[in-house]
Order: sequence, then structure tokens, then C-alpha cells
Amino acid sequence: MANDFFGQIDPPQRLLMGPGPVNVHPRVLRAMAADMLGQFDPEMTTYMNETMALYRQVFMTQNRWTFLVDGTARAGIEAALVSLVEPGSKILIVRAGRFGLLLSEIAERIGAEICTIDLPWGEVATLEQIEEALIAHRPQVFACIHGDTSTTMAQPLEGVGALCRKYDVLSYVDATATLGGMPVAVDAWGVDVVSGGLQKCMGGPPGSAPITISDRAAEHIMARRHVEAGIRSGDMANGSRARIPSNYFDLALVMDYWSEKRLNHHTEATTMLYGAREAARVMLEEGLDARFARHKAAGAAMVAGLRAMGLKVFGNDAYRMTNVTGVWIPEGVEGERVRQRMRDDFGIEIGTAFGPLAGKIWRIGAMGYNAKKHNVLLTLGALETCLAAEGYAVKRGAGVDAALATCQN
Amino acid sequence: MANDFFGQIDPPQRLLMGPGPVNVHPRVLRAMAADMLGQFDPEMTTYMNETMALYRQVFMTQNRWTFLVDGTARAGIEAALVSLVEPGSKILIVRAGRFGLLLSEIAERIGAEICTIDLPWGEVATLEQIEEALIAHRPQVFACIHGDTSTTMAQPLEGVGALCRKYDVLSYVDATATLGGMPVAVDAWGVDVVSGGLQKCMGGPPGSAPITISDRAAEHIMARRHVEAGIRSGDMANGSRARIPSNYFDLALVMDYWSEKRLNHHTEATTMLYGAREAARVMLEEGLDARFARHKAAGAAMVAGLRAMGLKVFGNDAYRMTNVTGVWIPEGVEGERVRQRMRDDFGIEIGTAFGPLAGKIWRIGAMGYNAKKHNVLLTLGALETCLAAEGYAVKRGAGVDAALATCQN
Repeated sequence: MANDFFGQIDPPQRLLMGPGPVNVHPRVLRAMAADMLGQFDPEMTTYMNETMALYRQVFMTQNRWTFLVDGTARAGIEAALVSLVEPGSKILIVRAGRFGLLLSEIAERIGAEICTIDLPWGEVATLEQIEEALIAHRPQVFACIHGDTSTTMAQPLEGVGALCRKYDVLSYVDATATLGGMPVAVDAWGVDVVSGGLQKCMGGPPGSAPITISDRAAEHIMARRHVEAGIRSGDMANGSRARIPSNYFDLALVMDYWSEKRLNHHTEATTMLYGAREAARVMLEEGLDARFARHKAAGAAMVAGLRAMGLKVFGNDAYRMTNVTGVWIPEGVEGERVRQRMRDDFGIEIGTAFGPLAGKIWRIGAMGYNAKKHNVLLTLGALETCLAAEGYAVKRGAGVDAALATCQN
Repeated sequence: MANDFFGQIDPPQRLLMGPGPVNVHPRVLRAMAADMLGQFDPEMTTYMNETMALYRQVFMTQNRWTFLVDGTARAGIEAALVSLVEPGSKILIVRAGRFGLLLSEIAERIGAEICTIDLPWGEVATLEQIEEALIAHRPQVFACIHGDTSTTMAQPLEGVGALCRKYDVLSYVDATATLGGMPVAVDAWGVDVVSGGLQKCMGGPPGSAPITISDRAAEHIMARRHVEAGIRSGDMANGSRARIPSNYFDLALVMDYWSEKRLNHHTEATTMLYGAREAARVMLEEGLDARFARHKAAGAAMVAGLRAMGLKVFGNDAYRMTNVTGVWIPEGVEGERVRQRMRDDFGIEIGTAFGPLAGKIWRIGAMGYNAKKHNVLLTLGALETCLAAEGYAVKRGAGVDAALATCQN
């Protein structure tokens, strides 16, 4: 009979060096083991307020509206777009990888008019390209991906916020794959809405999407506010602009819930909030600069090691994400068999790829809790063995030695 | 400096006897402490398949499509409605409490034509009323709430599925507040889509929404399928019907992700999946009948105890949910001060109310891990003391004695 219910959760020991999710910091898992609180209990609302304060530091912003969307990183993206973009309004999207395509996919479903800066997978847009497109299309909203794991490239964002403000455009940036690993300098960039996830450089599990919203974007969103009939009271006026076509992702309602009003919306995902809060505490105790430097060092060691093994690294060094590296699968080597050997023989996961890069590159991450020298060295050593087993001529030890050398510089 | 990062998560010990969230079964919290897996690793996809099998038993169904939506219970509701209801199509909604109103709120945002069976908060619809409305309005979709915690009443659902099928109507039922506590007999009811949550009778934390979908509803949803450009390949045809206006809640894409295709969509919220899986295992090991009986006994003890204290229980006994009880706040007693005393002096949370019942009733739950004799007795004893402190004339000991007597019958 017990067979119908399967066994306990007992995942194999695995070092996750793909593009995420990655191993969770043990402190985060421990924090998530705490029991529930009533959702309007002062202890719970205090945790919510503290989480807001912590994520202001994580997002390097003063934005009052900095909180969590209850869902995976993709939920944060959709909440941002559906709340910012009105049906029939125009959005300009940079598309240079899978997640840029996802932005236009979501915007299409909103019924927005979409204009794009389309680039080959792996390129980034220049400020000039963005300004030209803003002038040509005059959109209401601009959206792009900071670090697109599908290409391992990071879009430079200095100056983008100012450009958007110059043309009176609201801006959105998805920072799922960079938050906690590279500077996500929301106020310095001057962008309006930025969302992220926990399962990459934040060292948490997937399932919660931190988001931050500038005052001017919040004002726009609040003008679309529409309170539920079941909890509406006399003094709650609805906004003048087009109603947001989702209730769950209506950020005006979610802001009311996270504000002193505590207007009931969803029931906050308590355990995920505990985890998000602890992930931010771990990050801030380490220090932003130290943390970004750790990711950069791990990424540099990975790139050096891969190159010393004779492999060709994907994309332009100038725009490389520090926390995930694309590497071309050498001719004659079957990519999926190498991934399988990595997993079966070494307990290490590296990533496959999507779209035009599927079967052509592996994506090897060093994110969050895993962005450390020893994990890079172990991964390179294992990869060397797996490549040799596939008949690829690799100078044994070269990758690990080169990676180790970068750490000693 | 450490002050900027606040302290560890360390919630006060609290017995949560409101309408949810409630205390989580310790086994669920322990399961959630396990580390991540790669999302397409065989161990992870095995856990996903096992979770599907477990929730088929929880939902008392053979439905192939039984899985989790990554978000709170409200995310499950929105995913169901946005995937079933096409813009401009007609939906018939039973509204007899806050969550019925939420259904029409969501349907409005979808752009559906809404017709309703409107009842005073606390009533339920009869089969005759439903059939009349189906004939009068000829909707494409029928939707209602099984147990509406805002009124503590459960809508009877025997025969509703057959009625809907007779008029070729797809049916949706929200079972957030009853799943795991009262029979949610999906196949016996013959309804098409049912969603729930973890944070009430399932004894888990909020943040994951189990859902089950009949084959005919899945066919309808798959006809609205639209694969993302970033991962589309040659053999993936898009459906013929109106595209689902949300990407995150597009159940066609979520089904592709949970199917053997494993088409990437969101990154499954691993920790919440571990918790959902363990909550189902705990429930099934207890046995459905034993579990429903336990909730029923706890609810009956609560009702008997409240009545013995001279309090008036809200609503009709014939339709009462077994796991949460509404009780009128006696005249001259300040409801919020009693709740505060309960929390401050006894560490026990009971619930407030919404809408027309706000300030008029308390809602006292006995759900999931907490649906036990000792918790009911402790709650009644504490409530008696708090009422006496407010000057309410209560015969000391009467409530606890009466509740205990129901347990000995």
C-alpha cells in the first residue's frame, strides 16, 4: 500500500553548474523550515516590511515599492509587463535571445503594439540603436533583458534609463539571471521597473520574484487600480486608466497588500518569503562588492579553464555575464552524452541550450552559493575527463591549471 | 551594521485557528529543506510525475492532467479561468461570498460576458437554480466556489457536472478551502477543472496551487495553445482557438511542461513542489476517509462548544464547511479586541471577516494539521476567557465540556 505514496523527498547529491536553478544556500533552506504566521499578524507584516528594505539594497535603489511577486521569475516579468503596458499601447523590446522573445510573447498576449530591436542571439543593443528606435517608434514602454542566460550575454544598461526618460518612456528590465551576481543598479540606471528571481545568483529556490518599481511607474500603475468588489469600501476609488487584464498580476493590488493598507489580495507565500528574506540577508552580509567580485572571479576562472582546454567560448568577452559561460560543443562531440557523463560520473549538472544555439553550446554556470573556485575547478576537471572519454584531444590538467592560475593573480 | 539586515526568521509559536494559512505539518517543512535538482533531471521529472499521481488521489480523479500551478491558490483560479474562458464568451458564476465575487472579477478582466446567480452571503445555489440559469444564459463556462471561507459555507456539487455536460458547458470549481478536508470528488461530481491550495486543509504553506483538468477541458485548452517563439520547433502547431491572454497562466504551455514533452516554460518552484508532494503523501497515508472524518469531528466539536458558550453560529448547518466555522460576535463585544487577547494571551489566531460580514462574525478554523480535538478544546477555553474579560456572560467551562462530549460520542 505504501507504494502508492512513493518515498520521501531525497534528491541525489548534485552540484548544479547549469544556468539555474543552482544549489541553495543552506541558511536559506533552514529559514524556510520555520512555521507559518497569520498573514496580517504584526510579526508577518514586519517580515514583509523587512523584506522590502532588504531588496531595496539588493536592487541598489531607494524605490519605496520593492517587494515580491508570488510565482517564479517569469511571474515577475508578466506582472511587470501586464501592469505597465496598456492594451493597444506601444512597447519597444530588445530581442537578442530567448528571453527577449519571451517579452514580446507576453506583450502580444496583452494586446500591445510591438516594435523591436532584433539582433542575432548573443549580441547586445547599443545606446545609439536604442535611441534611434525610441525616436522611430515613440513607444510608451521600453523592455529588455539584463542577462539573457540563453546567450550568456549581459545588455549594458548605463544611460538607458535617462534615454527612456528623455523620450517619456517607461522602462522595464528583467534581471532574473543577474540579480545577486552582477550589479543591478536600478537607481543608477534610472530604469523604472526591474524584476528578478531567487534561483540563480541569489542562491535561493525558484518560486518568488523580487520586483522594484519607481514612483513614476507606480503612479502609472495606480492609475489602473481596480479594487475587488468583495473587499471594496467607500473610500477606494478606481483609477482612470485601462484596467489591468490580470487580477493576480495587478501590481496596484499587490502594492495595496504590501502597503500599510494591507488590503487583502493573495495569501503571501510565507515559506518563499522566508527564503527570499534570508537570501537577501546572506547577500548583504557578504557585501554587494564582494559578492559581485566572487561571481566575476569564478566566471573568469571558468572562461580561462575552458579556453586552456582548447574550447571556444561563445560570444563577446566585452558583454559576457560573469555567472554563466556559453561554450561551443567541439565538432565530433555529442553534447548530450557529455552532459550525461558529467551527471552520472561526477554528479555535476551543466546546461544545454535553446533555439538557434540548441545542440551547439553548453551553458556552464557558477551562480550564487556555487560561484566559488572549488566548484569551477571540480567542474573543469570533470569536463576534461568526459571530453577525453568522447575522444576529444584535450591536454590533461590544462583547464584546471589555467583556472587555478586566474585565482592566484 | 548587522542591524541593516535584521534578525533570523524566528516566528513566535502560534496556533493558527483562522481560515488559513494554518500551521504546516512538520513533515512538509522537513521535505522542503531538501536541496535543488536541475529542472529536467530525471530525479526532478520523476518527482513531478509522482506529484501528478498523488494529486489524482487527492482530487479523487483519473484525470491525466493533474499538476501544480506555481503561485498561491489565487494563481490556480486565474490559470483555470484564463485558460477556459475566451474573451467575449459567456461565463455563469455563482456569487454568494467574497470568492464568488473574485471569480467574476477575474472573468471581467478576461473580457468575458458575465452572468451570475447572486445570493446573499452564506447561501448556496440549488441544482434547480443552476439549471435555470444554464438554460436562461447558455454560457460556455460555469464557475463556482466549493467552500467559501468568507461565509464558511460549502456549495453542494453532486449533479453539477452532469448538468453542465447536459448543456455542453465546461465547469470550474475552486476548492482552495476544502481540498484535503472535505471530499473534493472531481470525477463523481463530473466537473471539468478544479483547483486548490496547500495552506488550508492540505497542511502545507501557501504558494502552490494543485489543479486537475478533465480530458474534454484539456482539449479545449490545447486548442488555444501557442508555443513561445524562443523554443518553438517545426512540429509544434498552434491551436485554432483564441490565444490565452496570459503566458504564465497558459495551461496549454504548463501541460506541455508537465508532459513527456517537457517543453520549457517557467522553472518549476522546486521547494514548493517538494512541499506539495509531501502534503499529499501525509494526507494519503492518513487515508481520505479518516482525514475527512477528522475534520468533521473537529468542526462539530467547535460548533457544539461555541453554542454551549451561548454564541450564535453563522449560516445553515446543512451547508456548513467542516473545517471553518463562522460565529456571530455577541453584542457589546469588540471583535478585534477579542482576537488580540486570543493572540497576546494564548498565542492563538482566529479570523476576522470580509465585506458584509466584516466586524460581525469571527471565523474559526480547524484545518489540516490543526484539525484535532486538543486544538479545538484549547481554542474554546481561550475564547471563553477572552469573552469573559470583555464582560460577556459565559458559563465557565461549558464550551470545552460540550466540545469534549461530542468527541466521546
